[in-house]
Amino acid sequence: MSSNNRKGLLIINTGNGKGKSTAAFGTLLRAWGRGFRICVIQFIKSETGKWGEIKAAEKLGIEWHTSGDGFTSRSKDLDETTARARQGWKLAQEKIVSANYDLIVLDEFTYPLKYGWLDTTTVIDWLKANRPSELHLIITGRSAPVDLMEYADLVTEMNVIKHPYAQGVKGQPGIEF
Amino acid sequence: MSSNNRKGLLIINTGNGKGKSTAAFGTLLRAWGRGFRICVIQFIKSETGKWGEIKAAEKLGIEWHTSGDGFTSRSKDLDETTARARQGWKLAQEKIVSANYDLIVLDEFTYPLKYGWLDTTTVIDWLKANRPSELHLIITGRSAPVDLMEYADLVTEMNVIKHPYAQGVKGQPGIEF
Repeated sequence: MSSNNRKGLLIINTGNGKGKSTAAFGTLLRAWGRGFRICVIQFIKSETGKWGEIKAAEKLGIEWHTSGDGFTSRSKDLDETTARARQGWKLAQEKIVSANYDLIVLDEFTYPLKYGWLDTTTVIDWLKANRPSELHLIITGRSAPVDLMEYADLVTEMNVIKHPYAQGVKGQPGIEF
Repeated sequence: MSSNNRKGLLIINTGNGKGKSTAAFGTLLRAWGRGFRICVIQFIKSETGKWGEIKAAEKLGIEWHTSGDGFTSRSKDLDETTARARQGWKLAQEKIVSANYDLIVLDEFTYPLKYGWLDTTTVIDWLKANRPSELHLIITGRSAPVDLMEYADLVTEMNVIKHPYAQGVKGQPGIEF
């Protein structure tokens, strides 16, 4: 995947809409089409119904980690949520520096930052020092910290204009999860 | 794919951001993961570089039509762009009523409406009369007509907050196309 024009982008999909993770999966599909090496780490415990993309990733042979299976709590001092977020970030750090990937997706990574389970400044400083120059990194989630958006190359905000839940329609498998 | 709770959604991804088509491809990936039957029709002639998603779709066995290969101009009275849009819509109508698909993506379909190559009211009336109740339909593109958004079930607006082109960084293959 190397070329002289290649510059790894830090991409943030934020806002209150449904398309944040979905757009990341679309980019993943596009990258997979080009033979990129891809890793996805989901930071918020998967909802039971979130199967469409995981099933697809399995079929495509894309490496996929969720807080539900990969991040075990080893600290007695932190609650499980915080511990999972820190384990997830530790895993992300290993993947980022490994040089084994062209694209890494940190899905819903803004939440550990927003809720203070991870320190935003520390995370940004680490990325500045350690992010390989050709690695593309996508971070999704609501309320992305301003400092992180400042550091990012591409920031898109997804906003709901109209939503079927408001009309009493249930979430549709294969479309919304 | 049938179930009593299934309701086909009309989904619109609009706004000035990069994520409109990308989010549609993410939904496509999720739907493919669940075994949905999928068809994509791209209304604006593909840019040369738009290969990542088409390569992926080929590998996944997803039916994919672009204005570049599928829509030949047969009218002497219309310019080629208008003729292609009308051919594309005709193809879309055939696919929509065929009952052969669970999800159809009309990528960049807002442009033929916006520029008047197709009449928005006629298109909406046709969809109201002919869209199968279980079919999911995704329409992407800037400037979605208000009447179409009114008719839709789910509307998301993607807006650019920060873009690397402004900083002189070129579009990155596998990520942006």
